[in-house]
Amino acid sequence: MSFHPPQRTLMGPGPSDVSPRVLAALGRPTIGHLDPAFIELMDEIKVLLKFAFRTTNELTLPVSAPGSAGMETCVVNLVEPGDSAIVGCNGVFGHRLCEMIRRAGGTAIAVEDAWGEPVDPNKIEDALKRHPEASLVAFVHAETSTGARSDAAVLCALAAEHDCLSIVDTVTSLGGIEVDVDAWGADAVYSGTQKCLSCVPGLSPVTFSERAAERIRSRETPPVSWFLDLNLVLGYWGSGARRAYHHTAPVNSLYALHEALLILKEEGLEAAWQRHAREHRALAAGLEALGLQFVVAPEWRLPQLNAVRVPAGVDEAAVRARLLREHDLEIGAGLGPLAGQVWRIGLMGNTARRRNVLRCVSALCAELPGAGDAAASAVAAASGVARD
Amino acid sequence: MSFHPPQRTLMGPGPSDVSPRVLAALGRPTIGHLDPAFIELMDEIKVLLKFAFRTTNELTLPVSAPGSAGMETCVVNLVEPGDSAIVGCNGVFGHRLCEMIRRAGGTAIAVEDAWGEPVDPNKIEDALKRHPEASLVAFVHAETSTGARSDAAVLCALAAEHDCLSIVDTVTSLGGIEVDVDAWGADAVYSGTQKCLSCVPGLSPVTFSERAAERIRSRETPPVSWFLDLNLVLGYWGSGARRAYHHTAPVNSLYALHEALLILKEEGLEAAWQRHAREHRALAAGLEALGLQFVVAPEWRLPQLNAVRVPAGVDEAAVRARLLREHDLEIGAGLGPLAGQVWRIGLMGNTARRRNVLRCVSALCAELPGAGDAAASAVAAASGVARD
Repeated sequence: MSFHPPQRTLMGPGPSDVSPRVLAALGRPTIGHLDPAFIELMDEIKVLLKFAFRTTNELTLPVSAPGSAGMETCVVNLVEPGDSAIVGCNGVFGHRLCEMIRRAGGTAIAVEDAWGEPVDPNKIEDALKRHPEASLVAFVHAETSTGARSDAAVLCALAAEHDCLSIVDTVTSLGGIEVDVDAWGADAVYSGTQKCLSCVPGLSPVTFSERAAERIRSRETPPVSWFLDLNLVLGYWGSGARRAYHHTAPVNSLYALHEALLILKEEGLEAAWQRHAREHRALAAGLEALGLQFVVAPEWRLPQLNAVRVPAGVDEAAVRARLLREHDLEIGAGLGPLAGQVWRIGLMGNTARRRNVLRCVSALCAELPGAGDAAASAVAAASGVARD
Repeated sequence: MSFHPPQRTLMGPGPSDVSPRVLAALGRPTIGHLDPAFIELMDEIKVLLKFAFRTTNELTLPVSAPGSAGMETCVVNLVEPGDSAIVGCNGVFGHRLCEMIRRAGGTAIAVEDAWGEPVDPNKIEDALKRHPEASLVAFVHAETSTGARSDAAVLCALAAEHDCLSIVDTVTSLGGIEVDVDAWGADAVYSGTQKCLSCVPGLSPVTFSERAAERIRSRETPPVSWFLDLNLVLGYWGSGARRAYHHTAPVNSLYALHEALLILKEEGLEAAWQRHAREHRALAAGLEALGLQFVVAPEWRLPQLNAVRVPAGVDEAAVRARLLREHDLEIGAGLGPLAGQVWRIGLMGNTARRRNVLRCVSALCAELPGAGDAAASAVAAASGVARD
């Protein structure tokens, strides 16, 4: 029997609510991946990605697989056997970077911070001094597992000072908070489509500085992955009318990405960031009125990923299940050491609307044991945050 | 500006024409990749893939990236550094297998056959005798670059006799000609969605025998790829209600795959193979009436991928461009040593219909310099092949 999905409101850690415009684009008739009309679309997508990343990097394209493959693209193209990389680890994704670096034949020097804290630039600087052999610094700008932002500008500058290339994870930040690849001087940056771009999952935009591109062109060994080898991928995604077949691009997903980027461009980057910040304030007002406590300090809190502690004695999985079943509302569970301890409430891209904030706060009022008197004031608090 | 693709008829080497039912499924609202409703869909997809592959293999799932990533999944999970693999090379994709095996730290022993010929079992057997250290035999069942079928049953049996696991590329065969994983005794088989399944590009179904699964579970080193590491992927795609996050699945593409597999099941595997064979006979009658010669001998010819030689003096790229521009009809160019020498005309999945055969033959009549008198008889020849 054909599958007809329930109609959810997606307030987990991604995917976020995909706009009907994007779904309509996705469902348009498939054409060939070498069709001249498709090549033109690819060129437009590259221009729009440069806009979203705020970069003039020529080497900017969407990898034909989800965000984790974007992470692996950056790692396997920049790490050669014997290379050392300093990695900021303050959640799931920093540790994943370490694992990928090791599999590519490199040494990962993990610099640990507590989950919920930003990556500490002082510790990164210490590691750079202790490891002059390091050629890379990698970190996560917006840790999806905790909701913490790290200071990408400072961390990229430290890397450059010590002659290292930087790898920056912007899976959850792109389109939701300031991402400024050229101003940061970031060298290799990857993202995902299903977070603040509110496109369907399955693609991973990446961008590389000329410095990084030069290192990739002059590698001594080929990357461990053929599928993600940028020197090969560029035969297809490079410039010029002539494109060589490498793999079959996910044509329809790229229609969707194009439409999602158009929507972002129409709104404007700053306007999108401001909307995320504003709706976060509304959500935070509601959650705090319900007595829920954030994991991350206000200064480092991501507006688009709100991790709050589960109140003592509450069965967190049961609450999530009821939100889904009774309210068609998805929120996320904790990962790693935060499993069972937190909920992760996403306000990403098209989901970051007041109607969803109020929906979430009122659903929590209904389902949180003992919300009682707090309920009315929570909705009022969320509703009261200025709308423009 | 939103992208509105031209409406093509896709008779190249894939993607093929995607049914409106599949496009409708693709465009349904996105839900979370851990939503219980989605987990149920995943389970149904696994059952349908087992049906399509004709296998009871428990380890059967769609990789979240195109066919080349399916190839890389088989290679990186089965090859450990120092392993040797015998690879049948009779086109682009055998050579790609060699390249991936080397990058995974293995030794690829290439067994060459001419492009357009099947893989010769005698040569594979000789290689097995000369290389008792080999632990794998890899080959392409349906070479998309030439249109040649190889005898998968015989090649898999040879591998098993010599205590090797077999890796079989069924990217272009699955759904179009007989693929019989369990009867072959094949150990690792990958495919793509955009060929005879007529789904959108971007996913790669794979299936592994218990013997292959056991080798994967007992590896001494982790695979070079984290993204494609099946021991990790199975935390998400494995059985049971509890699924651990690994990467974000391409939710909407999986809706589409589910629908495409339902369509295949409704038609029946044998009926789909017969339809491909019948429409191939019609196309061949038309092409031969036009004086076009097939690259592959009839016995080894793939019905779904018809490689024909470009007549002397004809500008092949100009003809393809006119077919696309004037007729909205895509056919494929040659690859590698066949570039400029052949056209590849696909009759895959939903495209394998008499209306498309006639459309292609009549468009070639119009655009082939000097088709002249042959034109009327070519259409009549294609039209005259029995329809059931």
